[in-house]
Amino acid sequence: MKDTKTLFQHGTLALLVPGLFDGTIKMDEFMKHGDTGIGTGEGLDGELIVVAGVAYQIDGAGNVNKLDSRFTLPFGNMHFADYQPLKQVDGLDFVNFPENILATGGLANSFFSVKLHGTFKTMQTRSIDKQSKPYHTLAECAGKQHVFDGEDKTGTVIAYYAPQLFNGVAVGGFHSHFLADDLSQGGHILDFTGFSGDVELQVFDNLAQSLPVNDPEFKNHDFSKDDIEGAIKASE
Amino acid sequence: MKDTKTLFQHGTLALLVPGLFDGTIKMDEFMKHGDTGIGTGEGLDGELIVVAGVAYQIDGAGNVNKLDSRFTLPFGNMHFADYQPLKQVDGLDFVNFPENILATGGLANSFFSVKLHGTFKTMQTRSIDKQSKPYHTLAECAGKQHVFDGEDKTGTVIAYYAPQLFNGVAVGGFHSHFLADDLSQGGHILDFTGFSGDVELQVFDNLAQSLPVNDPEFKNHDFSKDDIEGAIKASE
Repeated sequence: MKDTKTLFQHGTLALLVPGLFDGTIKMDEFMKHGDTGIGTGEGLDGELIVVAGVAYQIDGAGNVNKLDSRFTLPFGNMHFADYQPLKQVDGLDFVNFPENILATGGLANSFFSVKLHGTFKTMQTRSIDKQSKPYHTLAECAGKQHVFDGEDKTGTVIAYYAPQLFNGVAVGGFHSHFLADDLSQGGHILDFTGFSGDVELQVFDNLAQSLPVNDPEFKNHDFSKDDIEGAIKASE
Repeated sequence: MKDTKTLFQHGTLALLVPGLFDGTIKMDEFMKHGDTGIGTGEGLDGELIVVAGVAYQIDGAGNVNKLDSRFTLPFGNMHFADYQPLKQVDGLDFVNFPENILATGGLANSFFSVKLHGTFKTMQTRSIDKQSKPYHTLAECAGKQHVFDGEDKTGTVIAYYAPQLFNGVAVGGFHSHFLADDLSQGGHILDFTGFSGDVELQVFDNLAQSLPVNDPEFKNHDFSKDDIEGAIKASE
């Protein structure tokens, strides 16, 4: 039976901060943990979104590519979808999205996912080109991101919320990726306006946190010198 | 097959800080996640240690009691033991214990457990009486702890290490409980000197973090006002 109460996470946001971008899980292993998710590829090779069991990469040029099982990731979230209808909205902007969801009450201390499907008057996403070694820091790479602006897009947002206590482990608050139904746009969401459509919610009882404990760079990195909170604020 | 690569945790250290001491998991459910562990009871009702599949409570009076399945916990760790021999030591003090273990290298960013078995020249443990509602904060309760001093004790230490990134989720660093072989002493370790015996290590790939997402007090608590790091430092 599929465990719909558990959010799987491989890696941490913290390990991306100093540039530990090596892929430490393969797609075929990653995909065992759900049919819905987000992530990034080795070397920050694009933004990933998994919808209905199909994994897509939005690369640095903005192209939406299907991913094969050999692709590797340093960081990603996956879960088995069991979303419940929460509400319908008409004209919601990204800036009000957190408050709009948290107004439901009793959610702030739990991990949950929100799925939006409908039309977006504007949608601004970003992706990063695949970086090569030696990797720069996440903040330096985020400065080289490509930004894509869409209008009147119909598509899906997969967002994950982590309680503030877990900031650094994950993104404290919301972390949201987009995919247009016609695959004309996708990526990590920087902004959207005028969303009209369905809002669905899935609350998790458990976080299954997987760490790349056999990766030499991860094992031996001194995280005490990294400004994890600052880098997340700057780049997410 | 037993999953020996996963550390299960119910609750967070952070939820104990403001006094969310209600038991939100029953022993029979908790014990499904391993044969080795530590924790505390509802209302901080003693210190728990699970050794070889048997759960013991060290109550506020210092008595070691076997626990039944109806006992509930706000917080605990469990795993299936698969310890590997690390070394033998002769005369190790608690103050040097973290450095002694981390000298192995490559461990600081992973969750792991250390098991000690042997003799302790001195062993200082603590337990707390069961508190009643309305609960005080963890720091206030820690001020009312009972301290037990043993000499020439033979027994087991179960210690869990969490990377500093997870401080607040768990205790960043080591969190160690003791049980004497003859059940004459146990509890949360404040200090020991002169440990001679076997040191065993088990590194985890995964943290399975369970949250009491249906508990109204947990759901609705505002953790932003709690000094989680300060309280852990003061009471752990």
